[in-house]
Order: sequence, then C-alpha cells, then structure tokens
Amino acid sequence: MRAAVLGTGAWGTTFACVLADAGCEVALWGRSAAVCEQITTEHRNTAYLPGIELPAAITASTDASVALAGADLVVIAIPSQSARATLERLRTLMPAGCVAVSLMKGVELSTDQRMSQVVAEALGLPADRVAVVSGPNLAREIAERQPTATVVASTSEETAQLVARACSSAAFRPYTNTDVVGVELCGAVKNVIAVAVGIAQGRGLGYNTRATIITRGLVEITRLGLALGADAETFPGLAGMGDLMATCASPLSRNHSLGVRIGQGMTLDEAIAATGGTAEGVKSSRSVLELAESVGVEMPITAAVVGVLHEGLPVADLAPLLLARPRKAEGV
Amino acid sequence: MRAAVLGTGAWGTTFACVLADAGCEVALWGRSAAVCEQITTEHRNTAYLPGIELPAAITASTDASVALAGADLVVIAIPSQSARATLERLRTLMPAGCVAVSLMKGVELSTDQRMSQVVAEALGLPADRVAVVSGPNLAREIAERQPTATVVASTSEETAQLVARACSSAAFRPYTNTDVVGVELCGAVKNVIAVAVGIAQGRGLGYNTRATIITRGLVEITRLGLALGADAETFPGLAGMGDLMATCASPLSRNHSLGVRIGQGMTLDEAIAATGGTAEGVKSSRSVLELAESVGVEMPITAAVVGVLHEGLPVADLAPLLLARPRKAEGV
Repeated sequence: MRAAVLGTGAWGTTFACVLADAGCEVALWGRSAAVCEQITTEHRNTAYLPGIELPAAITASTDASVALAGADLVVIAIPSQSARATLERLRTLMPAGCVAVSLMKGVELSTDQRMSQVVAEALGLPADRVAVVSGPNLAREIAERQPTATVVASTSEETAQLVARACSSAAFRPYTNTDVVGVELCGAVKNVIAVAVGIAQGRGLGYNTRATIITRGLVEITRLGLALGADAETFPGLAGMGDLMATCASPLSRNHSLGVRIGQGMTLDEAIAATGGTAEGVKSSRSVLELAESVGVEMPITAAVVGVLHEGLPVADLAPLLLARPRKAEGV
Repeated sequence: MRAAVLGTGAWGTTFACVLADAGCEVALWGRSAAVCEQITTEHRNTAYLPGIELPAAITASTDASVALAGADLVVIAIPSQSARATLERLRTLMPAGCVAVSLMKGVELSTDQRMSQVVAEALGLPADRVAVVSGPNLAREIAERQPTATVVASTSEETAQLVARACSSAAFRPYTNTDVVGVELCGAVKNVIAVAVGIAQGRGLGYNTRATIITRGLVEITRLGLALGADAETFPGLAGMGDLMATCASPLSRNHSLGVRIGQGMTLDEAIAATGGTAEGVKSSRSVLELAESVGVEMPITAAVVGVLHEGLPVADLAPLLLARPRKAEGV
C-alpha cells in the first residue's frame, strides 16, 4: 500500500515510521526543503525526532504532487487551525479513491467543527472515506518502537479496518471503532483537561487532585459526547481515558506544561512564551465550551479553565472550584 | 458524632484527621503503646505521618473498650488478611447501633470475600450497617489537607449519607454510592494493575504503555464487576478510574514500587525485601483471578501478573503479553 503523509512534524514523521514498519511505501510532504532533504537522504528528522533512524522506505518532498501521486492513504498531520486552507489548496491533487486519515486534534475555531469534518469538507470526500487515529500516543515513544495501542475510527467499519491493517505492526496495535464523534471529542477536550491538571500541579497539589480532575474531566467529556450522539463505550477506551491519561502524565505535553506555568503564577502570555507556542487546549477551550453550551451540557472543569485563561479568573480560585460540587452521588 | 478508628497506620490516622476536621470526636485504637501515647499527648504519629500535626480532638488507646465506648461510627483500618480474627475478638465491645466503615482494600485469601463481607460476618452486622470508603486517596496528601474527593458506599443510601456527613469537610469531599461490590472490587484489583504498571515501567516502557495497561486494566475490572453484579457506572468513577490512576501514578505506592523492582529483574522475594513487605496486589492477585475464573471472565493483565509473580513466567514475556490481543474493536 502507498501512503502520503502531510506534515513533517513529530507526529507526522512518527506515523510515517509506523506505516513503513507495517509494510507501506511512504512519502512525506513538508514545507521545509532542508527537513525533506534530511528525511530522504539521511533517514533522520533531527528537528522533531532527534536520535531516531527512519526506515528507508520513507521519502519526503516539498512538492505535494510528488508525495500524493498514487497514494491509497492520505494521512494529515498539519496544524489544526490552518488545515482547511491547506487542504483546499491540495484538493485537486488527491488520487481518486483515496482514504484520508486525520491525525489532528482539536476543534476548528471559526466553525466549531471536528477535524474529520474539516477534512471531508475541504477535500470533498464523503465521511466514509475519512478515518481518524487517536489514543495514548506520545510520538516520541512510538518512534522508539515502544509497544503502543491506538484507535482507528471511521463511520465505515471497512475504512477503519483498511487503515488499521495499513498501520498494524508488532509495536503498534490499532483497535477499530465507528464512533468518530466520540473519538474526536476526546482528542479535543483532553488538551483542556491537561491544562487544568497542569494548573493544579503548578499550585502544588498532588496525585489525589490530579486523579480527581482527570476522572471528573472524563465525566464531562462523556456528558458532552453523549449529547452530541457519541457512543458511551468510547470514553473509557484508549481514545478517551487512555489518551487523557498519557497526555496528563507526560511531562512532554505542551498543554500540561503551560498549565503548570499558569498555576505557578505566570500570565497566559508569559506561559505561552515560556512554553514556546500556544498549546492546543488554550485554543480549543472556548470552542469546547461553546459546543457544550449549545447542547445544554455543564462542563465545570472546562469552564474553570476558560475562566482562568481567558476571563481573568484568579488561579487561586480554580483549585477549590474544580472540586466544588454538591455532596451527592457521582455519575454522568 | 463519636468515631472509633481501629488502626494507627497512615490511613487510619489520616482518616481520624478527616473525621476530626469534620467535627467528630475521634478515638484511635492501636497495638503500640508508644504510638498511642504520642498521638494523645503530642498530637503526632511520626512513624506513619511525619511532620503532620493531628487535631486535638483525636486521642488514642491500646484498650479497645476505651476507643469503642459510645462510638456511632467504627472505622476499620487494620491489615486485611488478619481483619477477621481481630474483629471477632472485638465483637462484644461494639456499641449497639453503630455503623462499621471499612477502609481496607483487598480480598480475604482463605474465603475470596470482599472486606465489607468479612466485617459484616466478623462483627455480626447486617450489610446495611456497613460502609466502605474508597477513592483517589493517598493518605499523605489528605493528611496535608490537599483537596480530595472520595466515594462512600453502602447497600443502604442512608448509611452512606450518614458516613459522608461525618467525614465531609472543606478539603475532603465524599460522593455516595450504593454499589459496594463495584467499589470494593476496584479497590482490590487496582493493586494488581499497579504491579503490572510498575513492571512495565521497570522494563523501561513509557507513558503510552502505562496508559494502555491502566485503560485495559479498568476494562478487565469492569468485566469482572459486571459478572458479579456491580453497577457499570462505578468503574469510570472516583473509586474506579480515580483510585487506579492515583495508585499507578504515585511513586509512594508499594504495589507500584514492587512491580518496578520485578521489572528491573529482581525475584519476587528480593522485591518484597527491598519494598519492605508484601504489597497487597501480590496477595490479592491469585484471589482475583480465582474469582474471575469462577464466573468465566478473562482478565489477561491480572493473569500475566499472577504468571510473573507466582508461576515463573519470565518478566521479558510480560510486556508483549499485556498488549497481545487480536486486532479488533475494543470494549468490555
């Protein structure tokens, strides 16, 4: 099988390795001629995956028509907020009959759409030709061939199976799922919860609080998902609980690091500067809350994060607020 | 309200603080005269909670009749495997009409009973006068008054409410639940999963693997619980996912530390010696697997832990085994 991967960042390059390990011929497309040259000739991407040797089956080009020629799979790992514009430009280059695979997380700010919706619209593909991949998938660990499980979701079980077969190897184990809504919501909201966990940690709070925020966070993701028609079983799975835990545990997560800095007293601007860019959870938090309000769902943790990041809520007020719910039975 | 707490270890002493903060008069019972003397006169328990000042409302005695006199609540925080014998000895001292609260985790080896069953039998109490407390509750953090949520479960909602009121404070927030079976299974099996996570970490595996083991671990706990009549909503809650995450994240967890040592190549005996005692998950793992086999439920992670700890399975064989399931849809 032939795969094109759009994006030479850490996740795009890593997923190219996964596909190559599983036997695909893989062509990356990126903007940087230097990065593409290094991938093709030296089999390395030192900017994003230092120390990792890439399989020889991977080439890279700045010319999208080269990367996309004859691709059965088009894997998309570019920045979420500019995805629509980029994909609309590439639309005419898409091979007939290809399946698009979104590795992107988040919600488009201008439309509140999930990334698979953006992909389908921008490329003019029916939903059943689009899949998403999401799970406890820190790129660096996958690039090191650590055993990792993931979820491949598509409204078409057949498409999900096709993508799962294309990326399955000894170290990378995909499970299939047809609940695209649930899988993508988990991928978007986890970044907001990771900011909350980071803030709590930055305030000096320990494992009890972190476990509680993550647990209650998954409850509010579930509540939103069910209101939007997702399948309840997705949320305790690898794309829900699994990804949320990996993201909140990793010291490498940008959302988590930004939260820690906010918790320690930095302003949002200072934290963004220190983290080296705006974390996805900062961008998505308002869209997620808007989506929740549009279907009448309460998301107290997300609301608290929006309050601290965007509405001047003092960070000292956040920690009690995260746990401040009436004494009652728990549950969705 | 007057509460007796049996056991002056870290969790018993910490829960005494929680009760005192919530306005109870609290009497601890312990075996060590020195520890009881220090608690009563110096308001400290340096052996188990160094650096923590205990509320003045807490006294301690080696005489159980003193501690138990007039108690409305009898809170039990003694070693699980000797609980039955200890409680049978104290049975005649129980005040009429008291409610018993188990803080104990695990399954009794000789009977495969949950701890609330042991408590009810040993004290001759009906199930609706027994409650259990379980959640993401690392004792040290609670003793430091970090905000913490927990679950109080009893087959009687009224009993659960009574206990919840008795321990509710600004820093400690109980949720009630009537699913005692589910809450106690989560408390027992989490220690087995924590051993598995420790082993993976000891083998050098990262956050993806850990998140996957915890996620799949909760799936197998849920599967066992449903077969035993538990409520599905308990497992993604604080006593399920919450406690599992706190236990697996904390470097202080004995189960986790023992697993790390096994993963690094120690034998079980060496790891027990280095950890300073047998971790609860080592004892419970076989009982949990027996319970699962008795109801025809597969628990691949628990089985792998039993294999490594008790049946000579090489630890190098464990990591692939934990993830080695057919490519298919996930779920319970």
